[in-house]
Amino acid sequence: MSVGQVGVGIVGAGIVGCGAYRCLTTNPHAIERRAGGPVRVVQVADIDWAREREVDIPAELRTEDAFALTRNPEVHVVIEAVGGTTVARDVIRSAIEHGKSVVTPNKELIARHGAELLDAAREAEVDLEFEGSVGGVIPIVRSLKESLVATQINALYGILNGTTNYILTRMSREEVPFEEALAEAQAKGYAEQDPSADIEGHDAANKIAILAAIAFGRRVTIDEAYREGISKIAPADIRYARDLGYVIKLLAIAKRGDNQIELRVHPALIRLDHPLAAVNDVYNAVFVEGVESGNVMLYGRGAGSLPTGTAVAGDVVDCARNIFRGSPGRVPCTCQGEAVVRPIEEIEAPNYIRMRVKDRPGVMGAIATLFGAEQVSLESVVQEGSFGEEAEIVWVTHRVKESALRAALRRISELDVVVRVENCIRAEA
Amino acid sequence: MSVGQVGVGIVGAGIVGCGAYRCLTTNPHAIERRAGGPVRVVQVADIDWAREREVDIPAELRTEDAFALTRNPEVHVVIEAVGGTTVARDVIRSAIEHGKSVVTPNKELIARHGAELLDAAREAEVDLEFEGSVGGVIPIVRSLKESLVATQINALYGILNGTTNYILTRMSREEVPFEEALAEAQAKGYAEQDPSADIEGHDAANKIAILAAIAFGRRVTIDEAYREGISKIAPADIRYARDLGYVIKLLAIAKRGDNQIELRVHPALIRLDHPLAAVNDVYNAVFVEGVESGNVMLYGRGAGSLPTGTAVAGDVVDCARNIFRGSPGRVPCTCQGEAVVRPIEEIEAPNYIRMRVKDRPGVMGAIATLFGAEQVSLESVVQEGSFGEEAEIVWVTHRVKESALRAALRRISELDVVVRVENCIRAEA
Repeated sequence: MSVGQVGVGIVGAGIVGCGAYRCLTTNPHAIERRAGGPVRVVQVADIDWAREREVDIPAELRTEDAFALTRNPEVHVVIEAVGGTTVARDVIRSAIEHGKSVVTPNKELIARHGAELLDAAREAEVDLEFEGSVGGVIPIVRSLKESLVATQINALYGILNGTTNYILTRMSREEVPFEEALAEAQAKGYAEQDPSADIEGHDAANKIAILAAIAFGRRVTIDEAYREGISKIAPADIRYARDLGYVIKLLAIAKRGDNQIELRVHPALIRLDHPLAAVNDVYNAVFVEGVESGNVMLYGRGAGSLPTGTAVAGDVVDCARNIFRGSPGRVPCTCQGEAVVRPIEEIEAPNYIRMRVKDRPGVMGAIATLFGAEQVSLESVVQEGSFGEEAEIVWVTHRVKESALRAALRRISELDVVVRVENCIRAEA
Repeated sequence: MSVGQVGVGIVGAGIVGCGAYRCLTTNPHAIERRAGGPVRVVQVADIDWAREREVDIPAELRTEDAFALTRNPEVHVVIEAVGGTTVARDVIRSAIEHGKSVVTPNKELIARHGAELLDAAREAEVDLEFEGSVGGVIPIVRSLKESLVATQINALYGILNGTTNYILTRMSREEVPFEEALAEAQAKGYAEQDPSADIEGHDAANKIAILAAIAFGRRVTIDEAYREGISKIAPADIRYARDLGYVIKLLAIAKRGDNQIELRVHPALIRLDHPLAAVNDVYNAVFVEGVESGNVMLYGRGAGSLPTGTAVAGDVVDCARNIFRGSPGRVPCTCQGEAVVRPIEEIEAPNYIRMRVKDRPGVMGAIATLFGAEQVSLESVVQEGSFGEEAEIVWVTHRVKESALRAALRRISELDVVVRVENCIRAEA
């Protein structure tokens, strides 16, 4: 295929579609020079053209028929900005069938159906790129696929959800409870009215699954990822953590093991002097540990019309270069086989544990004895304040197997003197 | 050209050449999968094979003749790891003339002769890649050339020299003077015996010049970059800065202007809550401000055998992909015209000024009057401690034009009551 101009079709003129439109149309000369030829948006599909938008899409570019767009011979690259996993999937399949390269920032779709779609793209010798699906503007997908190919990556630690990072930042700075910080995030438009996809870690799990597949070269089944949300984090946990030299972040973690990988999303204690500890508000970051590379971190806005639009437009330029140079499909998916995810009971980490106990002599000894009986080795303990007849104890363990810790906590919970285990948070990074 | 295997030749088996050799030979299967075919080191040139090395390069790969290597028909990609700007330049020119793609981490060569070499590469339709030349493993070159092409970049702030960052980190943490921290860096092998290239900012200037050219799409003349080193930074400056909410870093800065760009390397105050403030020890980072992208930061090891080797090997895999796909020269240099660098007298920034004065009534008023006479607006002032009959005053100005500040400081220096202006440091980021 030799073309004089690369035509771009955008399906879905919502926040991300309009952001990509703006990025592609604002600096056309710079993009043309970088792509090796003109790159023009030639069609935009949406089912609702009455809606108000921040960008003015000319009437002659508009269509209501996404599949007319994917068939349009003037379209060489299709941007899927529909969202979800139904229509979006059909749009991408149709585009690939018609020989178009595809760019999508749709993390759920790539996490769930990436394997099938990437296979189809490889067979059709077109590109399927998805930089915007993880970390918004952060160039982590391209960095893993291209820049860091010659190092063995052992671990990825991601702050991959802006909503939860904003909430935890507010809770840390203002000492407000979770519910108040969430309400504030909703008022600012950083959190959905139904915030569960963010709060419960689904969004971050999709993203870390995508990165794990690239970093480890294995396909990953998203439902095997372990998830815990942030709603149980209390201001007291944040305060104790700070006194111990940590901040609390919702961390998405992928680690290479001998036969299994770890894949999990949960609140975690991070040392205050770790670069991830300084990632605040709606910012995202990915911290990469590689054998040859050493530590690498990439930081930026994980969401938003223009940051995600920048990532999408960058992918479009890459597809355009391949079309001009006759090299579509130049960087295909190279995953082989399926990753086996280690059960959460088998992972190891130091843990922070906060519990409410009766304020009596001998309590600490009784609890410590049960930790010891289950081989849970303790690093430190703090008993602070008293709450009527109760007291609060915070334990930090050495590195311990999750199953051993759970067994110990089960036995400890049954003690008369223990009111309840309030929280248990793994320490990472 | 259709090849079954991409042959790699390494010229210079020193620290970087051996690092690249190790990265390319340690995970050949992963690299083959990612490159789309086998990538093998087929020849290594060095003039001294008696020297001890950390890697064992098989005798059958060795040669003493760099130009036999660049002519070798089995070599498709040449890694220039000689260093300097003489032999290295000849090696690259020879490689390009013989139709080889070239990878180099040589910042001085790219900063000084990049234009000529990139022109030659474009004419020959081969790749000339140089990710390792800036920030070691940090994928900043590829990110600027590929991921962030669809955003207008307004500013780059880089911590691009590990030696000076290590020294400033030690000075901050241990409150030791510059000379002691430098001696320690030399003892650890982080600083050369003649440390001037690092300490005086030449190294960082080469790197920011390379990034500015890519980000702004204009060729940059390295000798126009303004440079100030770190040897004048005293523990007192670091202490005052911290009290004011800043750290001091050697910052490499490039800013887009209407007709001119700013290009400068000097110590700078950075707010403690800025992500660059957490970049410590030998780590490097580049902070990018883009209109559409928002802020993006990339962080990692800026030097060392394996981190730089990772970057070099990543470039080799990119060249190999292009060779397998018949698309060498796919991402050429796209600079047009020359950048005009704004004279340092015309830049604007807030400034920190520390001065020694005679401890008498009326001194502060006299100095403040002269600042005012030159339109230098003051944000804060601290007078602390007395040194015999002298006192120390620290001023922080609002944003001020450099020429106005210099005029004010000239007049202030002439006051009887002013012993000397000890230091003047711009605040950035």
